[in-house]
Amino acid sequence: MFKLLENKLKSENGFNASQIEELLSCFQSLTTEKHQILLHKGETARHLGCLRVFCIQPDGKESTRFFAFEGRFGTAFPSFILQQPSVALIDTVDKSELLRINYHDFQTLLATVPGWETLYRKELERDYVESILRIESFVTMNAAERYQRILQHEPHLIHRLPNRIVAIYMGISQETLSRLKSDRRF
Amino acid sequence: MFKLLENKLKSENGFNASQIEELLSCFQSLTTEKHQILLHKGETARHLGCLRVFCIQPDGKESTRFFAFEGRFGTAFPSFILQQPSVALIDTVDKSELLRINYHDFQTLLATVPGWETLYRKELERDYVESILRIESFVTMNAAERYQRILQHEPHLIHRLPNRIVAIYMGISQETLSRLKSDRRF
Repeated sequence: MFKLLENKLKSENGFNASQIEELLSCFQSLTTEKHQILLHKGETARHLGCLRVFCIQPDGKESTRFFAFEGRFGTAFPSFILQQPSVALIDTVDKSELLRINYHDFQTLLATVPGWETLYRKELERDYVESILRIESFVTMNAAERYQRILQHEPHLIHRLPNRIVAIYMGISQETLSRLKSDRRF
Repeated sequence: MFKLLENKLKSENGFNASQIEELLSCFQSLTTEKHQILLHKGETARHLGCLRVFCIQPDGKESTRFFAFEGRFGTAFPSFILQQPSVALIDTVDKSELLRINYHDFQTLLATVPGWETLYRKELERDYVESILRIESFVTMNAAERYQRILQHEPHLIHRLPNRIVAIYMGISQETLSRLKSDRRF
């Protein structure tokens, strides 16, 4: 995982060797099981990592905020930014090897390593844009159109996640999802 | 408006006088009428400014993405970042005096004026956090609780916007909004 992050840093923003070393030194490696809860509701998000961020309603229903796969960052963002208790939970969809960085080191890097803020800002833009487009897809598209959109932009969601999780993410039943998956037009 | 922006820049990030001059020079002033459409669906957002960003569904219903009042930036964000046609419209809720900056100058400033990226990044964090919390309020709170939340965090929305606009923003009828407004408990 460190190699993956190192390569990402090398290919972006022209970080020099000593900056890369400083950035990598702020991350800790963490190996997890499948469906391991990394953050409970009420805890404050103190790290960024690769995972699923979701909420459990009082009636027990789950709603997913987003997934972060390899190479992407994820956290319970309001909790992390405001350093307040989270309403969302974070779990690992699969056994994972994660890298995580704590809030304090993350803020230090923003202030001290030029280019790190640019990298973070671009990830933020990408996530915010995707969040807006996803919310609007619920309003402007039907289930089949939303399925096609995910198949086009984030096929790994369909191929790597259990049906139960994808159905929650799409706000549809597992039966509807199975029907969409077996539809030859897609 | 330039004075307002100049004061904002002076109070943040320690910009020096020549950087402030460079930043201000990239903004153009624009005076608008009430409900003037600044961006039509299908146009590409080429500016940031202060305004209401909303979508019109095929059935004619409106859904508001967000408002940007004095001192805040706003645009049809996916369109602006991706430089693609917008599905959202932008209009001015009131007669306004706006400052706007075009995409090209905005990118140049990010690359050339240290501290500008930090200012933008912090605005981005604030908007993304607010967006997440607002979406989740629809799932976890009833109308009265959401009304209280807006009254607490963004009272100017309630006090300055027409009931029709606030009701759309809250996803409730104008009757329900009137009832909430006259409830003495709030």
